[in-house]
Amino acid sequence: MASLTSWRALWRDGFLGAAVPAAHGGLGLDMATYVAVIRTIARGCANTAMTVHMHSTVMRFIDALGSPAQKRRYFAEVVERGRLFGSWGSEPAVSLSRTLLMETVIRHDDAGDSDGYVVDGVKHFCTMALGASYYMVWCALDGGGDMAKCLVQALVPADASGIATDGRWDTLGMRATFSPSVTLTGVRVPADAVLGAPGMAVQVGVIEVFALGYAAIYAGIAEAALAFAVDYAKKRIVRPENVAVAMDPTVQRHVGEMAAHLDAALLVLGESAAGWERADALERGLLANKAKYLTTETALAVTSKVIQVVGGRGAYKEFPAERALRDVRTATLMPPTVDRMLEAIGKSALGVETAMFNVAGAPKT
Amino acid sequence: MASLTSWRALWRDGFLGAAVPAAHGGLGLDMATYVAVIRTIARGCANTAMTVHMHSTVMRFIDALGSPAQKRRYFAEVVERGRLFGSWGSEPAVSLSRTLLMETVIRHDDAGDSDGYVVDGVKHFCTMALGASYYMVWCALDGGGDMAKCLVQALVPADASGIATDGRWDTLGMRATFSPSVTLTGVRVPADAVLGAPGMAVQVGVIEVFALGYAAIYAGIAEAALAFAVDYAKKRIVRPENVAVAMDPTVQRHVGEMAAHLDAALLVLGESAAGWERADALERGLLANKAKYLTTETALAVTSKVIQVVGGRGAYKEFPAERALRDVRTATLMPPTVDRMLEAIGKSALGVETAMFNVAGAPKT
Amino acid sequence: MASLTSWRALWRDGFLGAAVPAAHGGLGLDMATYVAVIRTIARGCANTAMTVHMHSTVMRFIDALGSPAQKRRYFAEVVERGRLFGSWGSEPAVSLSRTLLMETVIRHDDAGDSDGYVVDGVKHFCTMALGASYYMVWCALDGGGDMAKCLVQALVPADASGIATDGRWDTLGMRATFSPSVTLTGVRVPADAVLGAPGMAVQVGVIEVFALGYAAIYAGIAEAALAFAVDYAKKRIVRPENVAVAMDPTVQRHVGEMAAHLDAALLVLGESAAGWERADALERGLLANKAKYLTTETALAVTSKVIQVVGGRGAYKEFPAERALRDVRTATLMPPTVDRMLEAIGKSALGVETAMFNVAGAPKT
Amino acid sequence: MASLTSWRALWRDGFLGAAVPAAHGGLGLDMATYVAVIRTIARGCANTAMTVHMHSTVMRFIDALGSPAQKRRYFAEVVERGRLFGSWGSEPAVSLSRTLLMETVIRHDDAGDSDGYVVDGVKHFCTMALGASYYMVWCALDGGGDMAKCLVQALVPADASGIATDGRWDTLGMRATFSPSVTLTGVRVPADAVLGAPGMAVQVGVIEVFALGYAAIYAGIAEAALAFAVDYAKKRIVRPENVAVAMDPTVQRHVGEMAAHLDAALLVLGESAAGWERADALERGLLANKAKYLTTETALAVTSKVIQVVGGRGAYKEFPAERALRDVRTATLMPPTVDRMLEAIGKSALGVETAMFNVAGAPKT
Repeated sequence: MASLTSWRALWRDGFLGAAVPAAHGGLGLDMATYVAVIRTIARGCANTAMTVHMHSTVMRFIDALGSPAQKRRYFAEVVERGRLFGSWGSEPAVSLSRTLLMETVIRHDDAGDSDGYVVDGVKHFCTMALGASYYMVWCALDGGGDMAKCLVQALVPADASGIATDGRWDTLGMRATFSPSVTLTGVRVPADAVLGAPGMAVQVGVIEVFALGYAAIYAGIAEAALAFAVDYAKKRIVRPENVAVAMDPTVQRHVGEMAAHLDAALLVLGESAAGWERADALERGLLANKAKYLTTETALAVTSKVIQVVGGRGAYKEFPAERALRDVRTATLMPPTVDRMLEAIGKSALGVETAMFNVAGAPKT
Repeated sequence: MASLTSWRALWRDGFLGAAVPAAHGGLGLDMATYVAVIRTIARGCANTAMTVHMHSTVMRFIDALGSPAQKRRYFAEVVERGRLFGSWGSEPAVSLSRTLLMETVIRHDDAGDSDGYVVDGVKHFCTMALGASYYMVWCALDGGGDMAKCLVQALVPADASGIATDGRWDTLGMRATFSPSVTLTGVRVPADAVLGAPGMAVQVGVIEVFALGYAAIYAGIAEAALAFAVDYAKKRIVRPENVAVAMDPTVQRHVGEMAAHLDAALLVLGESAAGWERADALERGLLANKAKYLTTETALAVTSKVIQVVGGRGAYKEFPAERALRDVRTATLMPPTVDRMLEAIGKSALGVETAMFNVAGAPKT
Repeated sequence: MASLTSWRALWRDGFLGAAVPAAHGGLGLDMATYVAVIRTIARGCANTAMTVHMHSTVMRFIDALGSPAQKRRYFAEVVERGRLFGSWGSEPAVSLSRTLLMETVIRHDDAGDSDGYVVDGVKHFCTMALGASYYMVWCALDGGGDMAKCLVQALVPADASGIATDGRWDTLGMRATFSPSVTLTGVRVPADAVLGAPGMAVQVGVIEVFALGYAAIYAGIAEAALAFAVDYAKKRIVRPENVAVAMDPTVQRHVGEMAAHLDAALLVLGESAAGWERADALERGLLANKAKYLTTETALAVTSKVIQVVGGRGAYKEFPAERALRDVRTATLMPPTVDRMLEAIGKSALGVETAMFNVAGAPKT
Repeated sequence: MASLTSWRALWRDGFLGAAVPAAHGGLGLDMATYVAVIRTIARGCANTAMTVHMHSTVMRFIDALGSPAQKRRYFAEVVERGRLFGSWGSEPAVSLSRTLLMETVIRHDDAGDSDGYVVDGVKHFCTMALGASYYMVWCALDGGGDMAKCLVQALVPADASGIATDGRWDTLGMRATFSPSVTLTGVRVPADAVLGAPGMAVQVGVIEVFALGYAAIYAGIAEAALAFAVDYAKKRIVRPENVAVAMDPTVQRHVGEMAAHLDAALLVLGESAAGWERADALERGLLANKAKYLTTETALAVTSKVIQVVGGRGAYKEFPAERALRDVRTATLMPPTVDRMLEAIGKSALGVETAMFNVAGAPKT
């Protein structure tokens, strides 16, 4: 996770409010600009970009589903006090890539005269656990299995009683996002911690933003990796020929292949972002899928090939290439999977309507 | 080759003047529109698109290199009389993919008081041979080997004496372009048949248009092939399941993969075309290479996979898929090769200056 | 289809009896030798190899399912008289790649005191239609849908009354196999035309031979195509460099890639063939799938790349490369599909039992 | 690096003498068995396999080039005392993938009446630095540039005066091989530390063993990674479907693809090993290149896809998949590169003679 200093810098420069409406003091960036910002941050640090993106997507949910009072309250936390928000969706027994189902239960609080809720469950991949001020926890109302009727997002303060983490996050890449497992046991939240009516979270065209932002992150990592390879190839002179590696035709070939495919992926990403505002939820799913699929394939290929082009030294930790590979291989595991994306893009081309996620309880598409 | 009727229709609708300046009665299309037109024609017939594109590129050479008198004369032939122009560059002993060299010789005519020229040589892949009114023949002045000083384009009338063709064009695809071998023996042309000063043909940012137009053709073929597969998959019901092939997840997967990559290639093509007018010759080489490389790879993959998705019937000649495969596999052999494109794109990314073609006599890049 | 002369030559040399047991006068080749023979024939002519393979696979069904009397009778037709057998399985409304179902009906003949059968139905892709003496027609007894109980193979003489063909076979490749549609209307066959008990055809480890032989054919085509490219590259000298194309590093790279992958595919093919005799039906399905999958992918890649390496002339019909591409792209459409093969290989690795084909009426695996 | 304990175990079981002739007390394994051993070790630990392989290849050089006295002496160190040998070839300013050139200088010792040598230079990627007893250091006699005349291998004891290491080895993968940089300054070695005559090291068919053993290591890593994915997919049950991931058709597809390609690569590896003894140096180069190329491509694809199939948890360090990816991506950087291998395989197919390495001073092939 980015250091406190860098978070303060991001806040000071307004980027924590990138997705907060201008009326609430945020930057209210259009999607094209937002994607460019995330991609730019990712060129420097994919982990920071990921946490900013998770935070920003929570902002979008608040904007889409929150009451005026909720918006005032939570946006002020961000804009005025630099608070960070995380989103906890994954669970140990479910694969979001297959079906969106939450087993974490949210119930009305029976205690006394409370009109609040109690949350119980286990979450995995809890990005920014221990580091943010609020976590948007994805739950099922009363443990129901039909997500269209039961899916609820609750904003849980980090200091709420009953949150415990195993504190473990030892992974291939994206290590600085610190995303351990978290257990919520009888966590009490007030009534106004819940966003919108049950089931709304998958209907308002916001859940699709996750994937679009991931695409921007993969693109940024790949750009930085390729830039490193180009720089290295230009500077490294090998003997006995005494010419730069950049003059090697096979290196030129590999760089050309990477550059051409990355260019194409960036264009698709830009096009998807540019079309976002006028798209409905289904169309946003397609736009995000196209961008995420192409940046996934490209970033995996580029980060692996960059190491190959650089050679043995490409695996040194003092150079950024090996981290780019690890981060991309890890970050591209976020849902939806390549398989699901391909099927969804194909369905769209074939005129078969499909949402980005198979939602438990809904007819499967 | 498109029938006479279709040529007349293209002329009537103005498309033979697509690349003729408006001041000379043509459409004077900007490059983005031109590429869209070629791509659209290719969706219907790749062969027609190819011949229109060859013709149009000759128009661009006349516009870039011709004298005012030459422009008036040749553009009028097209706009007013619907004459077709071809371009003959390839030669049996040279590989343009490696080095641009012409062994066809053009010499000042020694006969009497002529100020004209005599052309001798053999050309391969002479698109529209026997079908056009003029052929732009690529020659070397006095047989010199330094193309920067000797390359000359001569506009030879189809009925000039000394032109003989073997009339053979039996190929995998692009069969209707009818592109046999032609031998020119002592072909006399007037002084004003020659365009510009020797060596200019590779310096004015026109030779790069060939590749950009090819990219538009590959894209159009792939679009039509995919549209056929989608239509077929939606309509074909198989027993005993009694569901459309479109409902098969693996078919959706394949269609999704084709659609995503084709979308990306089309964006790159559009971007390259949109940036054309403000680009210099080197930049145009890069724009065209990126578009041609990505459409080549995509079109080869799409046309092969479409047949696989459709299954056994995909190979029937009554369906368009098998012709799409044959046309793409043939048309993508036009220079520059994939290898050369990748090297050139890579050189550009690595800051090594390079032209689209290695020109004989020039230092190799 | 190979000419009569070549069939006579194949008969004279014993190859029509390649899969006929030695006890019946055939060569009784072990599978490794058989596959080598088919592959060798395919190097010369894929169409001949395909028809020999279809014929030979019918021989295997007779050997596995036939009564002693049937074996004596039909093997003698082949060994002594050089008769050819075809196999007609495909049908217009079914996709064998999805489910093996036959809608062609075979019924006990009600006429008089006949103990024979009547066959009614439509078959597609009837290889050697009009050219063979007998056709093994895949039928469902009384039109039942449970293939485990109803699948029946009847050997129908070519001159039986009620056989009509549309005579159409105009395809991308494998054109010489002449495989039109055939309609059978009230075709009467004697009782001893039926092989084995209903449902046996998919249980005796013979249906899997189809795919193994296809793999040999794809391999043979690819070998011949690569050999052509190598020969061409060595002989073709290009100017102005005056060196053979074979000296071009990118050509070496492409040839190396093709050679390495083809080598691997040939090893897998050989290994599958070598393990055939000791394998049961399920294992044979896996052996054949591995060989067919790898030769499919390799042959598609090799035949396309050979044309690319050779360049424009690679598309000329006077060279074998373009036919290799057309034949491979067509022949690799034979079931099972790449998708089905990958799933089946994966199931085997995952310990999920699966047969080569999904058989209608059986629980889907 | 494997712990001391594991080295003792390997010694006790005879594996440090895997490549030591039986006449000298080693196992004297034939190449097929040796490759199987390295592959098996790599399934458990790629780093141990790599160090055993480096050590064993030094044994082969001693066997091929050493005098009877040298063999007696050094083999006894291994067999009787369990000493480890390393090989230091790489240098900072040279790319072995391009040209084999050594800038580390070995000179006759001028001091007193010594008939020994002095070594000066810098080596990179010094596997087992600090951990072995002897290092085979690749040098140029008197700093000459023609390796065919000057290449010399000297066996330097670990405790020789003048060896200094930066002790840095912080890399993506193969971390336990501990392969830092080493500087040799005026390191004195006795006359009998040098193996064979100058230039012999690249002529005796041993240098090619490096690549064959690497191939065995890549194969072993990939096998272990796939086995993990298969096991995980069979055991992990996801809700709400409550079925094992192994039942997912796309997982089956991916596993099938990995299994098929890995099978093929293993066959090629086995075939190359089986043909080793009867092959000359050029043929060994080809055998090793084919095995290394196919295992490289397969292992890179398999280790990346295994993580994808497993999903988010695939990146956890508690599972072996992420280490497999890191080790393969790092280990496959060892020379020759994919580019060089493809060119060399292609040259062989095209009849252009080529050695595995371009040796400085030799005519480039």
